[in-house]
Amino acid sequence: MPTVTFLPAEITVEVPAGTLIHEAAIQAGIEELHLPCGAKGTCGQCLVEVVSGQSDSLGHTRLDAALADSHLVMACQTKVRDDLVVRLKTTRDAAMRVLGESHFLVSQEFLPEEDNLSPLYRTETLQVPLATVEEHYSDWQRLVRELCRDNGHVPVRAGLPVLRKLAAALRDEDGLVTVMLQEDETALHVLDVQAGRMPFIAVGLAIDIGTTTIAVQMISLHDGRVLAIRTAYNAQARRGADVISRIDYARTSERQAELRHLVLDTLNDMIDSMLTHSGVPGDAIRSVFIAANTTMVHLLLGLPPRYIREAPYVPTVSTMPTLTAGEVGLVINPQAIVAFAPGVGSYVGGDITAGLLCTELLTNHEETFLYLDIGTNGEIVLGNADWLVTCACSAGPAFEGAGIKCGMRATEGAIEFLEISDGGREVRYDVIGDGKPVGICGSGLICLLGELLVHGIVDQSGHFNDLDTERLVQQDNTRGFVLEWAANTGEERDLVITEPDIENLMRTKAAIYAACALILANVGLDWRSIARVYIAGGFGRYIQVEDAVLIGLLPDLPYEKFRYIGNASLTGAYCALLSAAHRRNLAALATRMTYLDLSSDPHYMDSYLAALFLPHTELGLFPSVALRLRSQESGARR
Amino acid sequence: MPTVTFLPAEITVEVPAGTLIHEAAIQAGIEELHLPCGAKGTCGQCLVEVVSGQSDSLGHTRLDAALADSHLVMACQTKVRDDLVVRLKTTRDAAMRVLGESHFLVSQEFLPEEDNLSPLYRTETLQVPLATVEEHYSDWQRLVRELCRDNGHVPVRAGLPVLRKLAAALRDEDGLVTVMLQEDETALHVLDVQAGRMPFIAVGLAIDIGTTTIAVQMISLHDGRVLAIRTAYNAQARRGADVISRIDYARTSERQAELRHLVLDTLNDMIDSMLTHSGVPGDAIRSVFIAANTTMVHLLLGLPPRYIREAPYVPTVSTMPTLTAGEVGLVINPQAIVAFAPGVGSYVGGDITAGLLCTELLTNHEETFLYLDIGTNGEIVLGNADWLVTCACSAGPAFEGAGIKCGMRATEGAIEFLEISDGGREVRYDVIGDGKPVGICGSGLICLLGELLVHGIVDQSGHFNDLDTERLVQQDNTRGFVLEWAANTGEERDLVITEPDIENLMRTKAAIYAACALILANVGLDWRSIARVYIAGGFGRYIQVEDAVLIGLLPDLPYEKFRYIGNASLTGAYCALLSAAHRRNLAALATRMTYLDLSSDPHYMDSYLAALFLPHTELGLFPSVALRLRSQESGARR
Repeated sequence: MPTVTFLPAEITVEVPAGTLIHEAAIQAGIEELHLPCGAKGTCGQCLVEVVSGQSDSLGHTRLDAALADSHLVMACQTKVRDDLVVRLKTTRDAAMRVLGESHFLVSQEFLPEEDNLSPLYRTETLQVPLATVEEHYSDWQRLVRELCRDNGHVPVRAGLPVLRKLAAALRDEDGLVTVMLQEDETALHVLDVQAGRMPFIAVGLAIDIGTTTIAVQMISLHDGRVLAIRTAYNAQARRGADVISRIDYARTSERQAELRHLVLDTLNDMIDSMLTHSGVPGDAIRSVFIAANTTMVHLLLGLPPRYIREAPYVPTVSTMPTLTAGEVGLVINPQAIVAFAPGVGSYVGGDITAGLLCTELLTNHEETFLYLDIGTNGEIVLGNADWLVTCACSAGPAFEGAGIKCGMRATEGAIEFLEISDGGREVRYDVIGDGKPVGICGSGLICLLGELLVHGIVDQSGHFNDLDTERLVQQDNTRGFVLEWAANTGEERDLVITEPDIENLMRTKAAIYAACALILANVGLDWRSIARVYIAGGFGRYIQVEDAVLIGLLPDLPYEKFRYIGNASLTGAYCALLSAAHRRNLAALATRMTYLDLSSDPHYMDSYLAALFLPHTELGLFPSVALRLRSQESGARR
Repeated sequence: MPTVTFLPAEITVEVPAGTLIHEAAIQAGIEELHLPCGAKGTCGQCLVEVVSGQSDSLGHTRLDAALADSHLVMACQTKVRDDLVVRLKTTRDAAMRVLGESHFLVSQEFLPEEDNLSPLYRTETLQVPLATVEEHYSDWQRLVRELCRDNGHVPVRAGLPVLRKLAAALRDEDGLVTVMLQEDETALHVLDVQAGRMPFIAVGLAIDIGTTTIAVQMISLHDGRVLAIRTAYNAQARRGADVISRIDYARTSERQAELRHLVLDTLNDMIDSMLTHSGVPGDAIRSVFIAANTTMVHLLLGLPPRYIREAPYVPTVSTMPTLTAGEVGLVINPQAIVAFAPGVGSYVGGDITAGLLCTELLTNHEETFLYLDIGTNGEIVLGNADWLVTCACSAGPAFEGAGIKCGMRATEGAIEFLEISDGGREVRYDVIGDGKPVGICGSGLICLLGELLVHGIVDQSGHFNDLDTERLVQQDNTRGFVLEWAANTGEERDLVITEPDIENLMRTKAAIYAACALILANVGLDWRSIARVYIAGGFGRYIQVEDAVLIGLLPDLPYEKFRYIGNASLTGAYCALLSAAHRRNLAALATRMTYLDLSSDPHYMDSYLAALFLPHTELGLFPSVALRLRSQESGARR
């Protein structure tokens, strides 16, 4: 049987000759190939590039004829003849590369089951009696009467867009209509109506708005399939790298409005790109679930963030009520429901509660867990099914690639792993997308710092040792280590890690470690009480726990206790978008968490300064690292 | 004591020398002179023109200095010295003239009492506890807790505009805030919040959207005072003179959108003019009550009107739920509540139920009333506190001045009353505003037709008799009667009533009389059973019942049984805007009314044709008219 290989993922399947390419893609488990026209060969959304091999066109659409002289064929209109290599058009978009990262690193058991989804709405098909001359009930009255028959006598509500469609919908199929409903504690809301039994095209968005990075998944609400994903830098970052400077910037209402528009522009650009690529119409987006820290929610909605950073640090809203896309300013169906993960307070927001959905924190009654979200802020949750404490620390966005000379997000061109050898003369690395490197992402930075330490290129205070390698350079009065020379990079400049970069990374890891140590001390536990450490954040595709322990970012615990769960806020938003049970869990989590204010803890600064070393000033806390450094030293001496 | 005369109304009062002009205006009962700046002489909204006489300026504001060389003075900064004639700036707008018409012709007992108003919202002043570091409740949580303390544990809701103001409002006066609340059957809605105990500036709009004419009152929600009033032709009229042709025009969604924008433009222009003249900011408009027929509501809201005129004549909505100004498209506070008078069906809408608030229909248990609303459509209600039946007939807009060569609305320049003498050679008339006539309004037309009949200028079929008067002219193949020659009019054209005009008026009056006769027959009553006839509609400032009976528009009953209540829809909207009791009455009225479909009544055409005569083919139905015509005839013979 011929084989079909799909690039860039290099997935190969064997299929009988005569199989359509899109059928081969389904067999290969490739989800990015969409057929909005229903495989009729009319929309051109399934175009793929034939790299090598022979295929046969069904050749009966106008589009097919137009493609005659190109390497492009429609996957739904082209049969496999012999071994074929094709490149998927949609995945060329670099942003698609992070699909592997976020989709999904959390255990399958936490994700909603495909055959048991409960999105923010439900649908019902009704037979509404036709009007008669004798009985003058309006269309709306007749619909309400039928809804109340099935749902009890609740108040029923609808907006003008639904009322505008109602008359035609009721008449098109003699009163048989399908309605989209949302029920809250007060009323039944009719979100949409259409004639007949057809299900609505219904797509949702799971959104994680980070201080530095925004991630959006477009999801089929019928089966939970991720149709597209985008990540982008939050355009607000130009107006302050972290939450505090962002709040300071927003001190006038004009600037507050500016920040609101910046984040809305970022979101709407991402959504627009997904809609364009997937062929999904914007009106099909029916619900959105947003996980974001409290400041990001305030800035998105135009709420003044000022009091978040003024004692007693109280936000306008912690648990934002459901809004519509129109109110928020998202350019999708203006009636789409926009729900928010509930926050705990000013510095522990919905991004954390959402992330906790990807853990055993609510279900495992025996063991104590530590949850670390390392983004621009570091947030920490400690607890189990009985109790939960949480705190936040200003980590800075270094592990998101920001504030690091050649740092970048975990997208195409990022070094995500590297090894140093030959006393610092050789560097081997892996690049996302396998092209030339253009920067280094979070996981790469952690790996790099560990390698620099164990190979004696930097000392425990993070300064370069004097070594005989041309990779050690002096630029603009700062010392640096060249990871790759300009000629071999995708951006034609040397990729260098500098001493200020290293200081930046050390400050970030020290802040996080110190906060963890302090929260443990506060509840009277030590590291050994922890059964599992969940690590969430946008480091990259994976994080080498070994490296993170080596630099003192993570505690020196048995490696099997760690779980890297990637962008858990986004995954949590995905879960809550699709599952009523997860939404109930979220609400329960938020009300149970106790917030500790580290900034008022007199021990914090001591704990932080002690951690500002590689791995830590108290090497006894890192026995495995101590052992490794000693063996490295003796190796070097040999 | 010197006198002050206010133009154009020519109201004169005597005041001591030294009285401020605005104080004199208050004494004269003039309500149009507003002082948004609180009589500080800073806003210039109270400018008046000094036509004659001496006044003294207080002369201590910059604005005062700027006015030095003009005839304009500020009423709040200028003292009366001797007899003074001033012209009000705001009342120059001709539309203001209808104030006398609509404000209010209904009996005082039906209007809400000034000291017992219950608009669509209420306010509450709360002391919200300040946040503390220990107790991390968000601003919203603390506000909700206080509201629930006073109102029970209802769900509390707020939109983003309120949440955006909340943080500052709570902190400005240490947690003392005043909130504007709306309670419906499901939740408590926070509409606005501000620091301290200050009441909100709160203004409302009562709106009557007729097929031909729109009227809007701007009303203080604190005391029910009418701050301004405007009437205008509905710009939709260019796309069809009556409801049926309007529905026919709206057959595509583009045209439906066009009609929506036309009526919104008319409304927003009227509102903008009132805001500009009164100095009231648009955001101060907090609630709106709309009375309109079912088709007008559909067109305003973009609901398809098509099924209103297709059997079984069912609208999308009869009783429109409350919306916001933003949803409707009114350019005022976008969060303002917009409520609608409930309709009965496709051809008896909220304009009729609202109008009934101005009658004894719900309170008088003994007697039977007839209610006639003569607009573009004629609607009739017959009944008492126990039963109500209603029907509609296509009258046409003739009595609103439309479709009549020199017809016009009852605004400045309209002939509202006239007398013919000397065998048709002399015509004496009264003009609204006392200037030169530019047209003739509804009351004038009724008067005219009666005069033409009793003076033998037209016969009972509405055709001109051959008479020796130069006023009888032939133009474009039609015969006409000149009311005034071009030289004496405000528009420099002859004011002529033509035979087609008379036919038009006769068709309208016949349709109304026939419908009344038929509804009576349907319930087995005759004219003598009627205790009172309410006549509503935009004829003009007053209607001469004698003339209306003479032409057979109204039945030949004792004159004291008739009450002309003017634009009762508008007055009803005013009542409902200000009174919860009236809103309850409205809901009760709408559910109790039984609709009769005249179009399917086989006797309608006979009844209509019999009425297509002056006053009626069956002269026995009009004994007083018969008597008068006979005496006129004998007089002519003498």
